[in-house]
Amino acid sequence: MNKCWLYFVLLFAIVSCGERLDVSSPNGDLCLQFSLSDAGEPTYRLSKGGAAVLAESRMGLVTSEVDLSSGFALLSTEHSRYDETWETVWGEERFIRDHHNQLLVHLQHSSGQRMDIAFRLFDDGFAFRYVLVGSADSLVVMQEATEYRFVEDPQVWSIPWRTEYYEALWTKDFQNKEQRAKSKDLQPPSLNSSLDQAIWTMDTVCSPITLEWGDGKYGFLHEAALIDYPAQNFFVQDGAFRTYLTPWSNGVAAYLPAGTFSTPWRMLILTDNLPDLVASRIMLNLNAPCAIENTDWIQPMKFIGIWWGMHLKTMTWWNGPIHGATTERMKQYIDFAAENGIQGVLAEGWNEGWQSWDGPDPSARFSFVTPYSDYDIDYLSEYARSKGVQIIMHHETGGEAGQYERGLDEAFAYMQRYGMHAVKTGYVAPTITTIDGKQPNRSQSGVRHYRKVVETAAKYQVAIDNHEPVMPTGWQRTYPNLMTQEGIRGQEWNAWATDGGSPAEHTTVLPFTRMLAGPADYTPGVFGFDNPVHPDTRVHATIANQLALFVVMYSPLQMACDLPEYYAQHPEAFAFIRRVPCDWERSVLLDGAIGDYVVMARQERGAEDWFIGAITDENAREVEIDLAFLPKGEWQATIYCDTPESHWRENPTAIQVIEKVVDNSDKLVISLAECGGGAVFLSKM
Amino acid sequence: MNKCWLYFVLLFAIVSCGERLDVSSPNGDLCLQFSLSDAGEPTYRLSKGGAAVLAESRMGLVTSEVDLSSGFALLSTEHSRYDETWETVWGEERFIRDHHNQLLVHLQHSSGQRMDIAFRLFDDGFAFRYVLVGSADSLVVMQEATEYRFVEDPQVWSIPWRTEYYEALWTKDFQNKEQRAKSKDLQPPSLNSSLDQAIWTMDTVCSPITLEWGDGKYGFLHEAALIDYPAQNFFVQDGAFRTYLTPWSNGVAAYLPAGTFSTPWRMLILTDNLPDLVASRIMLNLNAPCAIENTDWIQPMKFIGIWWGMHLKTMTWWNGPIHGATTERMKQYIDFAAENGIQGVLAEGWNEGWQSWDGPDPSARFSFVTPYSDYDIDYLSEYARSKGVQIIMHHETGGEAGQYERGLDEAFAYMQRYGMHAVKTGYVAPTITTIDGKQPNRSQSGVRHYRKVVETAAKYQVAIDNHEPVMPTGWQRTYPNLMTQEGIRGQEWNAWATDGGSPAEHTTVLPFTRMLAGPADYTPGVFGFDNPVHPDTRVHATIANQLALFVVMYSPLQMACDLPEYYAQHPEAFAFIRRVPCDWERSVLLDGAIGDYVVMARQERGAEDWFIGAITDENAREVEIDLAFLPKGEWQATIYCDTPESHWRENPTAIQVIEKVVDNSDKLVISLAECGGGAVFLSKM
Repeated sequence: MNKCWLYFVLLFAIVSCGERLDVSSPNGDLCLQFSLSDAGEPTYRLSKGGAAVLAESRMGLVTSEVDLSSGFALLSTEHSRYDETWETVWGEERFIRDHHNQLLVHLQHSSGQRMDIAFRLFDDGFAFRYVLVGSADSLVVMQEATEYRFVEDPQVWSIPWRTEYYEALWTKDFQNKEQRAKSKDLQPPSLNSSLDQAIWTMDTVCSPITLEWGDGKYGFLHEAALIDYPAQNFFVQDGAFRTYLTPWSNGVAAYLPAGTFSTPWRMLILTDNLPDLVASRIMLNLNAPCAIENTDWIQPMKFIGIWWGMHLKTMTWWNGPIHGATTERMKQYIDFAAENGIQGVLAEGWNEGWQSWDGPDPSARFSFVTPYSDYDIDYLSEYARSKGVQIIMHHETGGEAGQYERGLDEAFAYMQRYGMHAVKTGYVAPTITTIDGKQPNRSQSGVRHYRKVVETAAKYQVAIDNHEPVMPTGWQRTYPNLMTQEGIRGQEWNAWATDGGSPAEHTTVLPFTRMLAGPADYTPGVFGFDNPVHPDTRVHATIANQLALFVVMYSPLQMACDLPEYYAQHPEAFAFIRRVPCDWERSVLLDGAIGDYVVMARQERGAEDWFIGAITDENAREVEIDLAFLPKGEWQATIYCDTPESHWRENPTAIQVIEKVVDNSDKLVISLAECGGGAVFLSKM
Repeated sequence: MNKCWLYFVLLFAIVSCGERLDVSSPNGDLCLQFSLSDAGEPTYRLSKGGAAVLAESRMGLVTSEVDLSSGFALLSTEHSRYDETWETVWGEERFIRDHHNQLLVHLQHSSGQRMDIAFRLFDDGFAFRYVLVGSADSLVVMQEATEYRFVEDPQVWSIPWRTEYYEALWTKDFQNKEQRAKSKDLQPPSLNSSLDQAIWTMDTVCSPITLEWGDGKYGFLHEAALIDYPAQNFFVQDGAFRTYLTPWSNGVAAYLPAGTFSTPWRMLILTDNLPDLVASRIMLNLNAPCAIENTDWIQPMKFIGIWWGMHLKTMTWWNGPIHGATTERMKQYIDFAAENGIQGVLAEGWNEGWQSWDGPDPSARFSFVTPYSDYDIDYLSEYARSKGVQIIMHHETGGEAGQYERGLDEAFAYMQRYGMHAVKTGYVAPTITTIDGKQPNRSQSGVRHYRKVVETAAKYQVAIDNHEPVMPTGWQRTYPNLMTQEGIRGQEWNAWATDGGSPAEHTTVLPFTRMLAGPADYTPGVFGFDNPVHPDTRVHATIANQLALFVVMYSPLQMACDLPEYYAQHPEAFAFIRRVPCDWERSVLLDGAIGDYVVMARQERGAEDWFIGAITDENAREVEIDLAFLPKGEWQATIYCDTPESHWRENPTAIQVIEKVVDNSDKLVISLAECGGGAVFLSKM
C-alpha cells in the first residue's frame, strides 16, 4: 500500500515535467506564469494585454522551523474555470459575477511539507493564496516571502503602517517622510517583545494600497478573506513590494493549526481606467458565500445618534454634569428620527464604565448590560418601538477584547431582550492600536477576535458596525451582519484634529483607496459648521458636499452625524438625507480623479430612482455629468448644489435646490465651490 | 508517588514565603533584591552604597509558545559564596580573583516550565543569567524581556546597531542622529524575513555600552559567555534600557535545545572611578575555566604582515600585477621580522579565491589549502623556521561560514603540516554583516559558527585572530587560543575612510568601551604618514602616539601594521616596538578621561619591567605621571615623546627619546602634541 502510494507520487513527479504552469483571465487579457527556480523557489510573473506587469516575484512563507519559500518540487497542477452570478444581501451592487480561471499548483517541500498555491485570474485582476496541506504539526509562521515586482514603478496611495487605527490622510508617495512626520507620532505600546519597537518604526504602509501608472492604468493591492491570520502590510525592498505580516507581541506572525490551512488571498486589481477599478468585485468573490441562512433581519438603514456632541465636547460619554445619553435626550432623538424617516438611533455612553475612559474613575470597567441610572433603557426601548425606530446598541470595549469575548453571549442576549439588531463596537485602548494591553489589533490575535464577534453576533441576529477594526477584506459576503466598519479617518477628526481638520482632498481620495476595501462608517452630514471648542478645526466642506457624501461614501449603516437641531435649521437640504437610500442596485463611477474630484451614481435597490454625488477638493470646478447611463424616458432631477455665494469657511450652508426634467441625452452641469459638492436625485416620471 | 510529589511542591511554595530574596556583594556595597510581582513577573532592583541604582526592572524571555516574563511562582532560593584566584594563560593580568556571592532563584511557570535565575554580586558589579531547567521540548525564543531601569539617567557611549562589523566611532549620545547619519548607511541584506528590514532601521545600539554619570561613577553593560545564543543589543523604551536579541533571518532569536540551557550572563560593572572600571575582570570570571589541557603552544606575539599595502592600494590580495603575497616579498618580511625580534609574519592573499573578492573573477571561491602559484608555501615555511619566525595563516571566508566549516579540519590540518599555530580569520561578505548570505553575524547562527571554529582550532593547536567577529564576551578564559578579535574601527580606516580617518579622540574612547570587552586587533604602529591614494585621509597621530598604542590597546597578538621600509627609516622609534611585550603581569590605568586622554601602565609578564602609554585627543596637553605604583628602587626610564615641532599633519614623525633615572617618589611630566602621545619603558636598575 505504501509502495503503491510512492509510485503514484513518482508518476506525478514525472508527469509534472509536462504540466501547464500558466493561466489566463477569461478574456485572455491577463496571463500568469508560475515557475520554480533551480533552488525550488516558487515564483510568478504576470502580463496584461501582452505587456509584462509583474516580473518574476517570490512567493512562500517562512516558519520557525523551515523556509517554505524555497526547496520545493512540483507534484502536479490543476486548471479549472468558474462562472457564477450571485445576489448580495446588501451592497453597492445587487448582482455580482464571479468569472475566473484557476490554476492550482501542488508542491512538496524538501522537509516533506505539502503546499498548494491557488491562482485565480479574473478579467480585472488576479489573486493567489497558499494552502498548507495536511501538516503533521502546527506551524509557527514568522513571515511571508510574498512579493510584487512591478516592471514599471507605480505611484502609490497609502497610509503609514503605524497609523492609529488606520485613521490617516492618504498620501501619494509612501516614502513621504514629511507626511509621516505630521501623522501622530505614536509611541510603541508597552509590549513584551522589543521586536514591536522595530516594527513600529518601520517605513512600511498598511494594506490596501492604490497604484497609479499615469497612463490611465490603475491597481489596487490588498487581501481578501483575512481569517485566522495577521493583516498584511507592504514595504519596498530591492525594487519589490514585499509583504509584512503584523505579528503578535512576541514577534510570531501566525500560529497555523496542524492539518490543512488556507491563507487569505493576495489580490491585485488591475484596470485601464478608474470606473473599472471602483467597479471591481474581486474581493467579495474571493470570500465564501453567505453563511447565514435567514438574513431578513439584516437591514441597511440610516441612523442618527448621541455622538457628535461628545466630539464637540458639549456632552460627555460618562454620566457627569453634561452627560450625553440621558433618557430625555434619547427621547428627543427618537422623535426626530421618527419624524424624518431615519430608521435608527445610536446612544453612546449609555452604560457603566465610561468613568474610566472619559470620566474620573480609572478603575471602572465597561459593562454591556448595565445602563447609567439616567438612561432608562426599558422605557426608551418601548418608546422607540412605538415610534417604529430602532435603537442601535453601543459596545466600547476600551480594547479589552478578552473581557468582551467572555461577556459576549450575555451582551448579545441583552440586546435580544430589547429587540436590538445592530451594535457599534469600539476598541479605543489606552495602549493604542492594541487589544488586551499588548496584541496589535491587526495581528492574528485581533483578527481572531473580530471574527469571533461577527460570528457570535450572527447567532443573536445582531449586525455590527465595527470601529477600530482590522482593515476589511470582504467578510460581509459570508457574514452580511458585518455591515460597516471604521478603519478610516472619519468626520470626527473635523471636530478636534490639531491639524485643522481633514483637507477637502481627503474625501476625493477615499473612494479610490479605503472604500475599495469595503463600506466605511465615515458619518457624513455636518450642517453646523461652527466649532465651539476648536475654532481653528473645520469641516472643509459646504453643506452640498456633505449631502453628496451620502452617495459617494458607501455604508449600509449610514450615520447622519450632526445634532438634530442643526438638521431642523436646514429642512431644504435635509430633505436629501431623508430621501437618499443606503442600499443599491447598481453603482457607477461617472467621473473622477484621485485626490481631485468624484462623481458617483447609484441606483436605489429594488427601485428605478438614481442618485448622484459629486464632490471636489480645495479647487472649485464645473462637472459635466453625462446622463447616458439612465434608461430611456423622462426623469425629474432634483439638484442640491452650491450657490455662487457658497464657501466652505465663509458661507458653508448656502445651497440651492434646482428641479428640472432630463433624459439620457442630457448633460447636467454643476458648479462646485471650493470644497463643495452637488447631490442629485433622479426620479422616473 | 505523584501525590507525594505534589505535596512536596506545595511545601516548597509555602516555605518560599520565607525565602531570602536579596544578595549583597562581598564588601556589602552592592545589594540586589529579587521579587515576583502579583502577576508573577520576575524583577530585580539594585543599590550601591545604600543608594538605588536600578529601580524595579523586568526579567525573562518570550518564546513562541509561552511568555516566560510573567506567570511565575517562587519555588525556593539558594545562597552561596565564592572566592578563588586563578592564573590566566595570557592577559592584562596574570592573577584574577573571582570573589562573589550568588543567589539562585528557582521558579516555576504556570505552563509548567522551570526556570532558574542566577545572580552573582561582585564588589565591582553584578551579573545574572536565566537557566531553562529540564525543558521537555526545544524552545523557540522570540525575545528577551530583560531591562535595566536606571534611577539616574547615564550618558551612554555606544555604537549604533547597524554598524558594519562593529566598526564605528563611538559616540556619547546614542540618540545622536547626526552621528548615525554619518555612519555608513547600510542597506539591509537580502533576507527572507522582512523583520530584518525593521531591525536594520531600529534606533538601537550594540552591546557593550559604557555609562557615565558625571559624578565620577561609571558603568559598563555587556554580556559574558555568549554561547549558542544571539548577541544582545539595547534600546531605550519607557525609560528603561531594554534587550534586543539579534535574530536569525526568519526573525527567531534563539533555538534552545530540550533539557537544561543557560543563557549568557547579563553583566553590569559599576565603579566609582575610571581605573576601577578598566580593572574589572567580572567578564572573565563569568566564563568557564580553561578547557585546553596543554596551553604551551599558545604564545602571545607581535607580528608584521603583508597587509597595509593592500589598504594603501599599492598591492592587491589577488595574484594580479601588483600581488602582495609573493614569495620574494614574504621572504623580505621574514628577514625583517627575524632581524627585529618580531615573532610572526602574516601573509594575506596567499591563497586561491581572492579573484572573486579583490580581482576579476566573481565565480572564484576561497581555498585554504591552495597557495597562489607565486607564493611558495613549502619554501617559505622552511625559510621562516630556519629564521625562528612563525608564519601566521590567513583564512578570509568572504562570509561563507558553512563552506568554511565543511573544510575546517582540512584547513587546520594543512596548517599543522606547516607548523603554523595562528590564523587570522575574516568574514567580509558581499551581503555585509551576514554569513552564508543571510544570517546576521551576531545571530545565534553566527555565534555558533565562531565558537565551532575556536573549538576546532584548539584541537589542531591553532590560535585565532578573528576579524568580523561577534562582539567578544570572554571566551578566551575557556579557550585561550581565541587570542584577539576585530569588532573595532581599526587602523585600516585611516588608509581609506571617506570621513578623512578616525579622529584622535577615537583611541581615547576605545580603552573605556570596546577594549573592556576583550583584546582587539587594532594594529597600531603607522610610521609612514603620507597616504598615496587618499591624500585627504590621515592617521590622526604622531609617531609617539603610535608607539603608546602598543601599551594602551591590549592585544596578545599585536600587529605592527606598517611596511618594513618605514620602520627601517625610523630605527630610534622602532626600538620601542622591538622591546614592548604583549603579555602582562599587571595593568593599571594611571589617568584618563573618556574621549580626552589615557595614561596606561603595564608590567611585563614574568619580568620586573614596566611600560607606560599616554595618548591624547586633538588637544595638546601635559600629563603628569605619578610613579608611586612602581616598587622601590631606581628605574631607568626611556621616554619616547613628541617634540615641540611634532604635529600630526605637518610633522608626525618628529620624536625625541629621553633617558632618565627615576624612583617611585617621582612624577614624570610628558608634553603630548595635538593627537600626540608618549611611550615609556621603565627598567629596574
